[in-house]
Amino acid sequence: MTKIALIGFGVVGQSFARVLSQKQQELKELHGLDAHIVAISGRSKGSLMVKEGIELEHLLASFEDNGTVESYPTGIKGLDSIQTIKESGADVVVEVTGTNLETGEPGLSHIRKALSMGKHVITCNKGPPALAYNELKGLADENGVKFRIESTVMAGTPAVNLGKETLAGNKVNGFKGIINGTTNYILTKMEQGGGYDATLKEAQELGYAEADPAGDVEGWDAVGKVVILANTVMGADLKPSDVEREGITGITPTMIDEAKRENMRIKLIAQAHIEDGVVSAKVAPERVHMTDPLANVNGTMNALTYMTDGLQDVTVIGRGAGGVETAHGIISDLIAIYR
Amino acid sequence: MTKIALIGFGVVGQSFARVLSQKQQELKELHGLDAHIVAISGRSKGSLMVKEGIELEHLLASFEDNGTVESYPTGIKGLDSIQTIKESGADVVVEVTGTNLETGEPGLSHIRKALSMGKHVITCNKGPPALAYNELKGLADENGVKFRIESTVMAGTPAVNLGKETLAGNKVNGFKGIINGTTNYILTKMEQGGGYDATLKEAQELGYAEADPAGDVEGWDAVGKVVILANTVMGADLKPSDVEREGITGITPTMIDEAKRENMRIKLIAQAHIEDGVVSAKVAPERVHMTDPLANVNGTMNALTYMTDGLQDVTVIGRGAGGVETAHGIISDLIAIYR
Repeated sequence: MTKIALIGFGVVGQSFARVLSQKQQELKELHGLDAHIVAISGRSKGSLMVKEGIELEHLLASFEDNGTVESYPTGIKGLDSIQTIKESGADVVVEVTGTNLETGEPGLSHIRKALSMGKHVITCNKGPPALAYNELKGLADENGVKFRIESTVMAGTPAVNLGKETLAGNKVNGFKGIINGTTNYILTKMEQGGGYDATLKEAQELGYAEADPAGDVEGWDAVGKVVILANTVMGADLKPSDVEREGITGITPTMIDEAKRENMRIKLIAQAHIEDGVVSAKVAPERVHMTDPLANVNGTMNALTYMTDGLQDVTVIGRGAGGVETAHGIISDLIAIYR
Repeated sequence: MTKIALIGFGVVGQSFARVLSQKQQELKELHGLDAHIVAISGRSKGSLMVKEGIELEHLLASFEDNGTVESYPTGIKGLDSIQTIKESGADVVVEVTGTNLETGEPGLSHIRKALSMGKHVITCNKGPPALAYNELKGLADENGVKFRIESTVMAGTPAVNLGKETLAGNKVNGFKGIINGTTNYILTKMEQGGGYDATLKEAQELGYAEADPAGDVEGWDAVGKVVILANTVMGADLKPSDVEREGITGITPTMIDEAKRENMRIKLIAQAHIEDGVVSAKVAPERVHMTDPLANVNGTMNALTYMTDGLQDVTVIGRGAGGVETAHGIISDLIAIYR
């Protein structure tokens, strides 16, 4: 039995529990993986530890009725996240608390604790790997465990693992992509007519943009992801502050129309390149020609092109957000740890 | 030391030797893989066995001057392919002879012999996996070795391994793609003006189409690849004769123009779907809307969209042919075997 401690029980945490519950049998049959959640700890959803494994359908039904995991009939309640990591006896910690790109907390402390106790860690939280990937990877190596982060970029659509593992044997000399769905949605809608402010308001009403949209529209979310890709796939050691950054707040309908007349689209492009052994990275709006695969990635879709020595350009296109999509990225990491 | 026997020394075999020679050091440093070719056997390029490993730069220079691997100064010469597999002491057989979709030979015999002797096999030869994937995978399992075939579809651009491994945890309910570069080149050129015959002639002059173009333009090459993808990624048990097939020989400039007026492009689409547990597959020209990622894949580029339960559509776009590209697919399989 593989024991999982789930730290964070928001949209992703709940989706992970639901997807795992649906796929538990399949994981056992296809991958020999008998995965059970033995502990859950959420900031505002309570905490629960059941050493023989939580019955997930039961938990999810009870949580839906009561809004807390502590309504589950058995188990130990009331532990905080660090206590949960320490006392759960888990083999794997799935860390899905919210991203903070300035401090990395609380995820950073959770991940350090878990790795130093010899537990594998899987996270979708961009803060810790954007700020400290190389430290955390080193800590994992020292303790003989894995630190896997597929879902931090483009949710479960293969991005990190594609570059690091599936393309192994190629040297990745750079990448460019559309890795923030909110800004891509706004730019796509603006092309169909509509100013920046009206389109942002619409995106907020649809739940694609947050009340404070700065993280997306100023490019910070994409900066976090660029740093993660550069450090994991290209072996760089960048920090978010090393990335040249420009958001989409200055883009006008006129600029979009002008580009269109020249058979181009404006996209928020996140990219990194290596030159003389030095990796530099940038997030900024760019005019992309219609023949480029990235030009035809519209709405909330994401895409990423790796530039390699052997295969030249390899592009992956898929959804870059969503609880279920993120949960599938976590599951693919779980399978990879035990393959 | 990981010992490789290379069976076939045409474009791919030579590219593999060259890429391995360039990456030998990197494979050791990054992946702990000390890979050496200990034997080469080509249909018309001679055969060579050097148990302590062939010095590849030396071999390639000597081959360039003399057109045979037997000009290498040391080693045993004159063994046939089966003898080479039996006597080389190789851990891995890299099988890169030409594809025959009717008999699978000579690759099928090479692969059966290698697997039954407990050697891992990596191949880019579509014949054996299209005709006998499940048999060969079973033989590999029985003998505790791997049978890996990334390069059979879209050369080294991740296709088989993407669906089987990187997307693990998702159920692949179907796929559709452009997986034959020759026909995609012809259709792209016809859209720019030019009849079928003139465009085919041009493709032949550029080396994109063979003197006998039937394998490509009648859809057989795509059929072989569809069967491989369906059997490996979707767990099907199809044979090439199970696939509904229509080539591009009936496509006229008028049909292309008509599609264009409706914002569509005609593409040779290879696809498979599962319904009630039964997988059915098809290769045929289809009108694809411009908003579909596949519509914007032009020239010799390939693309493949997996339809999954968790991530919905995931599309990969990249080169689908070329010696260096195919060699990188083989190298990625080699790394995966020893990861």
